[in-house]
Amino acid sequence: MNPLFANLPTTVFEVMSSLARETGAINLGQGFPDDPGPEDVRRAAADAVVNGYNQYPSMMGIPELRTAIATHYQHWQGVDLDANTEVMVTSGATEALAGAILGIVEPGDEVVLFEPMYDAYLPLVRLAGGVPKFVTLQPPHFRLTEEALAKAFSPKTKAVVFNNPLNPTATTFSDEDLNLLADFCRRFDAIAISDEVWEHVVFDGRPHRPILALDGLRERSVKIGSAGKIFSLTGWKVGFVCAAPHIMKVLAKSHQFLTFTTAPNLQHAVAYGLAKDDAYFEDMRKNFARSRDRFTDGLRTLGFDVIPSQGTYFVNIDIAPLGETDDVAFCRRLVMEHGVAAIPVSAFYAEGAVKNVVRFCFAKKDSTLDAGLERLADAI
Amino acid sequence: MNPLFANLPTTVFEVMSSLARETGAINLGQGFPDDPGPEDVRRAAADAVVNGYNQYPSMMGIPELRTAIATHYQHWQGVDLDANTEVMVTSGATEALAGAILGIVEPGDEVVLFEPMYDAYLPLVRLAGGVPKFVTLQPPHFRLTEEALAKAFSPKTKAVVFNNPLNPTATTFSDEDLNLLADFCRRFDAIAISDEVWEHVVFDGRPHRPILALDGLRERSVKIGSAGKIFSLTGWKVGFVCAAPHIMKVLAKSHQFLTFTTAPNLQHAVAYGLAKDDAYFEDMRKNFARSRDRFTDGLRTLGFDVIPSQGTYFVNIDIAPLGETDDVAFCRRLVMEHGVAAIPVSAFYAEGAVKNVVRFCFAKKDSTLDAGLERLADAI
Ligand SMILES: CSCCC(=O)C(=O)O
Ligand SMILES: CSCCC(=O)C(=O)O
Repeated sequence: MNPLFANLPTTVFEVMSSLARETGAINLGQGFPDDPGPEDVRRAAADAVVNGYNQYPSMMGIPELRTAIATHYQHWQGVDLDANTEVMVTSGATEALAGAILGIVEPGDEVVLFEPMYDAYLPLVRLAGGVPKFVTLQPPHFRLTEEALAKAFSPKTKAVVFNNPLNPTATTFSDEDLNLLADFCRRFDAIAISDEVWEHVVFDGRPHRPILALDGLRERSVKIGSAGKIFSLTGWKVGFVCAAPHIMKVLAKSHQFLTFTTAPNLQHAVAYGLAKDDAYFEDMRKNFARSRDRFTDGLRTLGFDVIPSQGTYFVNIDIAPLGETDDVAFCRRLVMEHGVAAIPVSAFYAEGAVKNVVRFCFAKKDSTLDAGLERLADAI
Repeated sequence: MNPLFANLPTTVFEVMSSLARETGAINLGQGFPDDPGPEDVRRAAADAVVNGYNQYPSMMGIPELRTAIATHYQHWQGVDLDANTEVMVTSGATEALAGAILGIVEPGDEVVLFEPMYDAYLPLVRLAGGVPKFVTLQPPHFRLTEEALAKAFSPKTKAVVFNNPLNPTATTFSDEDLNLLADFCRRFDAIAISDEVWEHVVFDGRPHRPILALDGLRERSVKIGSAGKIFSLTGWKVGFVCAAPHIMKVLAKSHQFLTFTTAPNLQHAVAYGLAKDDAYFEDMRKNFARSRDRFTDGLRTLGFDVIPSQGTYFVNIDIAPLGETDDVAFCRRLVMEHGVAAIPVSAFYAEGAVKNVVRFCFAKKDSTLDAGLERLADAI
C-alpha cells in the first residue's frame, strides 16, 4: 500500500458528517446547505436524463456547458475565455484540483501552500512528489506579506495553490494581496492553481477578483470553479477549470485518466443554471448573508467570540476566551454531548496549527440555525 | 508541466469520437450504445434529482447503493461482501482504476500489465512511480501461460492490472487462466486490480468468474465494476470497487482526494437498477449477442476476416488479409473517406503492437449497424 494514503486520516468533513448522522446531531460541519437546491435547475437535470443523451459526452465537457461557463465569466468577471481551448468540465472541484496538481507538479518541484488550507491540497502535492513550502497566514486578516512570500518562493517553485475566498477563515484577499501574489508568480515563473469555488458566495458588496484577471497571470494560472457551490447542489460534483491553452493541454490529459467525463444530464442543467441573470446570483448572496447574520448574531448573543465572515458558507469562533485549548476535543464534545457538529480548524494546518478556532456552516434553514444555537447555549 | 502527462496523446477513443462528430461518420469506435439506456432507471434518476437529496452523500457511496452492489454480487456471483467495509462507489470505473493504482503502487514497485491493455493503465502506473512489466497475450486466444507469467512476476511485484472480459480482444479468460493468475498472485504476494467492467456483457452462456472468487484472492484483490456498462448508460460515470477491508481503507483515502463523492441521484437510480431480476440481465445479454451476430455476419458477408467476440461491446477484424499493414492509417481512411469510425488496436499496446487488428463497437441499433456495414462495403 502506498503509505502516503495508508497513513492519511479520513477527511474531517466526512468524520464529522458521519458522527452527525450516527448521533442525530445538527450538522454545521461539512459545507453544504440543507435545502434541496434550485428547483428549476434540478428539473433541467431530470429532463435531460429522461429525454436526453446518457452516453459518454465529449471528454472536455459538453459544448453547451463550456460555452455557458465562458459566457458567465465574461459577463460577470470580464475574463475572456475560448470555450473550445480554455474551459474543461471535471467531476467536481476535487478532481479539478487533483488533475491540476498531478498535471503540473513534477517530483522535486516546490509548491507554495497557504495555511490554513483545504485538506486535499497537501496530500495531492505529496502524491505528485512535490515539496510543500508553507506560508502561514495570520489572523484576524490572513493577509499575504512580501516577507512571508519571499521566504516561500524560490527558483524551484513550480506552482502555488491559492484559495480565494478562503476556506475555513471565510475571508477574501484584498487587491494588494492579489497583486503581491501575481508579482511573485511572475518573478518566479510559477503557476497559480486558484481554487475559487467560493467566488459567488461573497458578502457586503465585495467583488470577486479572479486569478485570471491579475496582471500577467492569464497565461500562468488555473482557475477552479464549482457548480455544486454556485447552485448549492454540492452532491452534483460538476466542477470546471479555466486555463490558457498550453496549460489546458496538460490538464486534459490528467482528466483523461482520473475520470474522463462527467454525467451529461448534470452538465446540461448547470449550463441552464449559468444562464441565470445577475439578480439571481445577487439574491442568492443576500440569502446567505441573511443566514450569516442570523447565526452570527445568535452566537454573539450566547457570548461566543465570532470572527466575522466575508464569504463562503462559514463563520468561525475563537474558543480561547472560553478557556478552551483544544479545538478537536471541543468539537468532539459539541457533537457527542450537545448534538451540534462543527469543524476544528486545526484540521486545515500541516504545521503550527491554531487550536482555538472552530468553524460552523451557516448555509442552513433558519429553523436549523436556531435549533443549533439552542443546543450551543448549553455548551457555553 | 509533468512530462508524464504533457507527452501523452489524447486517448484514441476521444480522438475517434471527435473525428466522427466532425465528419458525421457513424461512430463504431468508442464503446457506447446509441440507445438512451433503460427508461425506468433514467426515471429513477430524474425522480431522485427532483425529489431527493442533492448534497454531499456519504463519501463511500449512499448506503442503499452499497447494499445493492453487495446483494447483486452475492446473488449473481456468490461473492459475500460487507456493504459497509468492502464496497465503495466511485465517479466511474476510470476513477476506481486511478484510485486503486495510486493507492496501492509505490515508486519502484513492479506492476504486471497484459497487452493489449486499456489505454489508462500504463499512464496511471507511471504516475504512481510503478515499473511496468508487460506480458503480451497472443492471438487468437489471448491465454495466460506459466512461462510468460514467470517472466513478468518477481519479488518486487506489488500488483497486477487485469481485465476480464478483455477489451479490446472481446475474449474471456478460462478457469485455467484465472487459476494460474491466482497462483502467481499468491506466490508473489501481489494484489490483483481487476477491471471487470464488462462482466455482464458475456455471450453464449459463458459465466463471469470474478477475481474475488479465486482461491486466495478474496483478500488480495480489487474488483472494479461499472454501472455505466451494466446499464448501457456510459455517461453516468458511476463505478464501484469491492475489496477486503484492509485494502478498502487505502482506496477510500485515494477516493477522498480524487473526487470525494458521486452524484446521489445517479447513485439512487443505479441502486434501483441493480435490484432487477436475472431475466433482465439475460435479456440484455441476448440483445447484445443478437447485435454482435448481425454485425459479425455482415462483416463476413462483405469478406472481412472477423475474430469472434465472446463478450464486451466489441468485435475485431484482421486487416492483414486485405494487404493492410497499418491499422491507424486504415482507421483514418475509414473515418475520413468512408464515414465509419473504428479503433486501431495498436493503441492498446506499449510495445510490440500488432498493426493488423481493428475494433468495432456493435452495441448499436440495427439501423446503425446496417448503415455502417453499407459504408464498409466500399472500404474492402
Ligand atoms: C468535499 S467535503 C468538504 C466541503 C467543504 O468545502 C467544506 O466543508 O469545507
Ligand atoms: C472511457 S472511453 C472508452 C470506452 C471504452 O471502454 C472503450 O471504447 O474501450
